[in-house]
Amino acid sequence: MQVDLPEVVAEVREAFERYEQALVINNVAALDGFFRDDPRTIRYGISENLYGSAEIKAFRAARSPAGLMRKVSRTMITTYGHDFAVASTLFHRETAPGKVGRQMQTWVRFDDGWRVVAAHVSIIDATKA
Amino acid sequence: MQVDLPEVVAEVREAFERYEQALVINNVAALDGFFRDDPRTIRYGISENLYGSAEIKAFRAARSPAGLMRKVSRTMITTYGHDFAVASTLFHRETAPGKVGRQMQTWVRFDDGWRVVAAHVSIIDATKA
Repeated sequence: MQVDLPEVVAEVREAFERYEQALVINNVAALDGFFRDDPRTIRYGISENLYGSAEIKAFRAARSPAGLMRKVSRTMITTYGHDFAVASTLFHRETAPGKVGRQMQTWVRFDDGWRVVAAHVSIIDATKA
Repeated sequence: MQVDLPEVVAEVREAFERYEQALVINNVAALDGFFRDDPRTIRYGISENLYGSAEIKAFRAARSPAGLMRKVSRTMITTYGHDFAVASTLFHRETAPGKVGRQMQTWVRFDDGWRVVAAHVSIIDATKA
Protein backbone atom coordinates (compact mmCIF):
# COMPACT_ATOMS: atom_id res chain seq x y z
CA MET A 1 0.00 0.00 0.00
CA GLN A 2 1.63 3.22 -1.17
CA VAL A 3 0.57 6.08 1.05
CA ASP A 4 0.71 9.68 -0.10
CA LEU A 5 2.05 9.25 -3.60
CA PRO A 6 2.69 12.89 -4.51
CA GLU A 7 0.82 12.86 -7.80
CA VAL A 8 -2.22 11.25 -6.16
CA VAL A 9 -2.20 13.71 -3.28
CA ALA A 10 -2.04 16.57 -5.78
CA GLU A 11 -5.06 15.24 -7.65
CA VAL A 12 -7.16 14.87 -4.54
CA ARG A 13 -6.09 18.25 -3.19
CA GLU A 14 -7.18 19.86 -6.43
CA ALA A 15 -10.58 18.14 -6.23
CA PHE A 16 -10.92 19.02 -2.55
CA GLU A 17 -10.22 22.69 -3.26
CA ARG A 18 -12.70 22.82 -6.10
CA TYR A 19 -15.29 21.29 -3.79
CA GLU A 20 -14.57 23.94 -1.17
CA GLN A 21 -14.99 26.71 -3.74
CA ALA A 22 -18.31 25.23 -4.87
CA LEU A 23 -19.50 24.87 -1.30
CA VAL A 24 -19.03 28.44 -0.15
CA ILE A 25 -20.90 29.85 -3.16
CA ASN A 26 -23.47 27.02 -2.99
CA ASN A 27 -22.92 25.86 -6.56
CA VAL A 28 -25.40 23.02 -6.26
CA ALA A 29 -24.73 21.45 -9.65
CA ALA A 30 -21.03 21.31 -8.95
CA LEU A 31 -21.55 19.95 -5.45
CA ASP A 32 -23.82 17.22 -6.77
CA GLY A 33 -21.14 16.27 -9.27
CA PHE A 34 -18.49 15.76 -6.63
CA PHE A 35 -20.49 13.11 -4.80
CA ARG A 36 -20.76 9.67 -6.31
CA ASP A 37 -24.21 9.23 -7.84
CA ASP A 38 -25.12 6.02 -6.07
CA PRO A 39 -27.58 4.84 -3.41
CA ARG A 40 -24.61 3.82 -1.24
CA THR A 41 -23.19 7.32 -0.99
CA ILE A 42 -23.71 8.67 2.52
CA ARG A 43 -23.52 12.17 3.94
CA TYR A 44 -23.96 12.78 7.66
CA GLY A 45 -24.49 16.53 7.86
CA ILE A 46 -24.63 19.11 10.61
CA SER A 47 -28.22 18.22 11.41
CA GLU A 48 -29.26 15.52 8.93
CA ASN A 49 -28.40 11.96 7.99
CA LEU A 50 -28.54 11.42 4.25
CA TYR A 51 -28.43 7.95 2.73
CA GLY A 52 -27.95 7.81 -1.02
CA SER A 53 -27.26 10.51 -3.56
CA ALA A 54 -30.96 11.22 -4.04
CA GLU A 55 -31.27 12.38 -0.44
CA ILE A 56 -28.02 14.32 -0.71
CA LYS A 57 -29.17 16.13 -3.85
CA ALA A 58 -32.52 16.98 -2.29
CA PHE A 59 -30.70 18.49 0.69
CA ARG A 60 -28.42 20.56 -1.54
CA ALA A 61 -31.35 21.83 -3.59
CA ALA A 62 -33.22 22.98 -0.49
CA ARG A 63 -30.28 24.48 1.38
CA SER A 64 -30.12 28.20 1.97
CA PRO A 65 -27.08 29.73 0.25
CA ALA A 66 -26.67 32.21 3.10
CA GLY A 67 -23.89 31.92 5.63
CA LEU A 68 -21.85 29.20 3.95
CA MET A 69 -18.59 31.16 3.85
CA ARG A 70 -15.99 29.62 6.09
CA LYS A 71 -12.30 29.35 6.82
CA VAL A 72 -10.65 25.96 6.97
CA SER A 73 -7.75 24.86 9.17
CA ARG A 74 -5.72 21.73 9.88
CA THR A 75 -6.67 20.25 6.52
CA MET A 76 -5.12 16.83 6.03
CA ILE A 77 -5.34 14.82 2.84
CA THR A 78 -3.95 11.31 2.90
CA THR A 79 -4.02 8.96 -0.07
CA TYR A 80 -3.84 5.16 -0.04
CA GLY A 81 -2.69 3.60 -3.27
CA HIS A 82 -3.78 5.32 -6.46
CA ASP A 83 -7.54 5.35 -6.02
CA PHE A 84 -8.45 6.07 -2.43
CA ALA A 85 -8.11 9.09 -0.15
CA VAL A 86 -9.41 10.76 2.98
CA ALA A 87 -9.69 14.54 3.29
CA SER A 88 -10.26 15.95 6.76
CA THR A 89 -10.51 19.57 7.76
CA LEU A 90 -11.70 21.81 10.52
CA PHE A 91 -13.73 24.88 9.56
CA HIS A 92 -14.85 28.09 11.19
CA ARG A 93 -17.71 30.45 10.39
CA GLU A 94 -18.06 34.03 11.57
CA THR A 95 -21.73 33.30 12.10
CA ALA A 96 -20.85 30.57 14.62
CA PRO A 97 -18.34 32.03 17.07
CA GLY A 98 -17.04 29.59 19.64
CA LYS A 99 -17.77 26.63 17.42
CA VAL A 100 -15.54 24.48 15.26
CA GLY A 101 -16.73 22.40 12.34
CA ARG A 102 -15.25 19.11 11.29
CA GLN A 103 -15.58 17.77 7.74
CA MET A 104 -14.30 14.35 6.74
CA GLN A 105 -14.64 12.98 3.22
CA THR A 106 -13.67 9.67 1.69
CA TRP A 107 -12.75 9.99 -1.98
CA VAL A 108 -12.52 7.16 -4.53
CA ARG A 109 -11.23 7.38 -8.08
CA PHE A 110 -13.71 5.94 -10.57
CA ASP A 111 -13.40 5.77 -14.36
CA ASP A 112 -14.83 9.27 -14.62
CA GLY A 113 -12.71 10.80 -11.87
CA TRP A 114 -12.51 11.29 -8.13
CA ARG A 115 -15.79 11.24 -6.24
CA VAL A 116 -16.81 11.53 -2.59
CA VAL A 117 -18.42 8.28 -1.47
CA ALA A 118 -18.91 9.23 2.17
CA ALA A 119 -18.85 12.47 4.12
CA HIS A 120 -19.49 13.49 7.67
CA VAL A 121 -19.85 17.08 8.84
CA SER A 122 -20.43 18.14 12.44
CA ILE A 123 -20.07 21.12 14.74
CA ILE A 124 -18.82 21.16 18.33
CA ASP A 125 -17.80 23.76 20.87
CA ALA A 126 -14.37 25.09 20.02
CA THR A 127 -13.40 24.96 23.67
CA LYS A 128 -13.66 21.21 23.57
CA ALA A 129 -11.53 20.69 20.49
CA MET B 1 -13.44 -0.36 -9.41
CA GLN B 2 -15.32 -3.37 -8.04
CA VAL B 3 -17.78 -2.23 -5.42
CA ASP B 4 -19.05 -4.55 -2.70
CA LEU B 5 -17.22 -7.73 -3.58
CA PRO B 6 -18.94 -10.15 -1.20
CA GLU B 7 -15.78 -11.59 0.34
CA VAL B 8 -14.40 -8.11 0.97
CA VAL B 9 -17.62 -6.89 2.52
CA ALA B 10 -17.62 -9.95 4.79
CA GLU B 11 -14.09 -9.21 5.97
CA VAL B 12 -14.83 -5.59 6.77
CA ARG B 13 -18.11 -6.45 8.46
CA GLU B 14 -16.30 -8.90 10.70
CA ALA B 15 -13.71 -6.26 11.63
CA PHE B 16 -16.42 -3.65 12.15
CA GLU B 17 -18.33 -5.95 14.50
CA ARG B 18 -15.21 -6.79 16.51
CA TYR B 19 -14.55 -3.08 16.85
CA GLU B 20 -18.09 -2.51 18.11
CA GLN B 21 -17.69 -5.27 20.70
CA ALA B 22 -14.40 -3.76 21.88
CA LEU B 23 -15.94 -0.30 22.05
CA VAL B 24 -18.87 -1.06 24.29
CA ILE B 25 -16.67 -2.82 26.86
CA ASN B 26 -13.91 -0.21 26.41
CA ASN B 27 -11.22 -2.75 25.52
CA VAL B 28 -8.57 -0.09 25.01
CA ALA B 29 -5.84 -2.39 23.72
CA ALA B 30 -8.17 -3.82 21.10
CA LEU B 31 -9.45 -0.40 20.11
CA ASP B 32 -5.91 0.89 19.68
CA GLY B 33 -5.16 -2.08 17.46
CA PHE B 34 -8.01 -1.35 15.07
CA PHE B 35 -6.73 2.12 14.23
CA ARG B 36 -3.71 2.45 11.98
CA ASP B 37 -0.67 3.35 14.07
CA ASP B 38 0.38 6.40 12.11
CA PRO B 39 0.55 10.18 12.59
CA ARG B 40 -1.87 10.58 9.67
CA THR B 41 -4.68 8.65 11.33
CA ILE B 42 -7.46 11.04 12.35
CA ARG B 43 -10.38 10.67 14.70
CA TYR B 44 -12.93 13.46 15.10
CA GLY B 45 -14.81 12.45 18.24
CA ILE B 46 -17.95 13.59 19.99
CA SER B 47 -16.12 16.48 21.63
CA GLU B 48 -12.48 16.21 20.53
CA ASN B 49 -10.38 16.41 17.37
CA LEU B 50 -7.55 13.90 17.43
CA TYR B 51 -4.73 14.03 14.89
CA GLY B 52 -2.44 11.03 14.84
CA SER B 53 -2.60 7.71 16.62
CA ALA B 54 -0.72 9.09 19.65
CA GLU B 55 -3.56 11.51 20.37
CA ILE B 56 -6.13 8.80 19.71
CA LYS B 57 -4.45 6.38 22.11
CA ALA B 58 -4.20 9.05 24.80
CA PHE B 59 -7.92 9.70 24.45
CA ARG B 60 -8.76 6.01 24.70
CA ALA B 61 -6.58 5.57 27.78
CA ALA B 62 -8.26 8.46 29.57
CA ARG B 63 -11.85 7.69 28.60
CA SER B 64 -14.34 6.62 31.22
CA PRO B 65 -15.62 3.12 30.51
CA ALA B 66 -19.06 4.08 31.85
CA GLY B 67 -22.02 4.57 29.55
CA LEU B 68 -20.51 3.25 26.34
CA MET B 69 -23.21 0.66 25.66
CA ARG B 70 -25.21 1.51 22.59
CA LYS B 71 -27.46 0.16 19.90
CA VAL B 72 -26.59 0.67 16.26
CA SER B 73 -28.95 1.16 13.34
CA ARG B 74 -28.78 1.79 9.60
CA THR B 75 -25.27 0.36 9.43
CA MET B 76 -23.91 0.47 5.90
CA ILE B 77 -20.61 -1.04 4.85
CA THR B 78 -19.46 -0.40 1.29
CA THR B 79 -16.20 -1.68 -0.15
CA TYR B 80 -14.24 -0.32 -3.10
CA GLY B 81 -11.88 -2.77 -4.72
CA HIS B 82 -10.14 -5.23 -2.43
CA ASP B 83 -8.49 -2.87 0.03
CA PHE B 84 -10.83 0.04 0.84
CA ALA B 85 -14.09 0.40 2.66
CA VAL B 86 -16.36 2.81 4.46
CA ALA B 87 -18.47 1.76 7.45
CA SER B 88 -21.23 4.13 8.55
CA THR B 89 -23.71 3.63 11.33
CA LEU B 90 -26.11 5.47 13.52
CA PHE B 91 -26.09 4.69 17.24
CA HIS B 92 -28.31 5.28 20.23
CA ARG B 93 -27.57 5.33 23.96
CA GLU B 94 -30.12 5.02 26.72
CA THR B 95 -28.16 7.70 28.55
CA ALA B 96 -28.79 10.14 25.71
CA PRO B 97 -32.50 10.04 24.91
CA GLY B 98 -33.55 12.21 21.99
CA LYS B 99 -30.11 12.09 20.47
CA VAL B 100 -28.68 10.08 17.60
CA GLY B 101 -25.00 9.34 17.11
CA ARG B 102 -23.30 9.00 13.76
CA GLN B 103 -20.07 7.05 13.31
CA MET B 104 -18.22 6.91 10.01
CA GLN B 105 -14.99 4.98 9.56
CA THR B 106 -12.69 4.59 6.58
CA TRP B 107 -10.94 1.22 6.55
CA VAL B 108 -7.85 0.26 4.53
CA ARG B 109 -6.29 -3.17 4.18
CA PHE B 110 -2.58 -3.14 4.97
CA ASP B 111 -0.17 -6.09 5.00
CA ASP B 112 -1.16 -6.84 8.58
CA GLY B 113 -4.90 -6.50 8.08
CA TRP B 114 -7.73 -4.01 7.97
CA ARG B 115 -7.22 -0.78 9.88
CA VAL B 116 -9.25 2.38 10.43
CA VAL B 117 -7.38 5.33 8.94
CA ALA B 118 -10.03 7.96 9.64
CA ALA B 119 -13.10 8.14 11.84
CA HIS B 120 -15.66 10.76 12.69
CA VAL B 121 -18.19 10.45 15.50
CA SER B 122 -20.83 13.05 16.35
CA ILE B 123 -24.15 13.45 18.12
CA ILE B 124 -27.17 15.41 16.98
CA ASP B 125 -30.79 15.77 18.01
CA ALA B 126 -32.74 12.75 16.83
CA THR B 127 -35.59 15.02 15.77
CA LYS B 128 -33.37 16.51 13.13
CA ALA B 129 -32.17 13.25 11.63
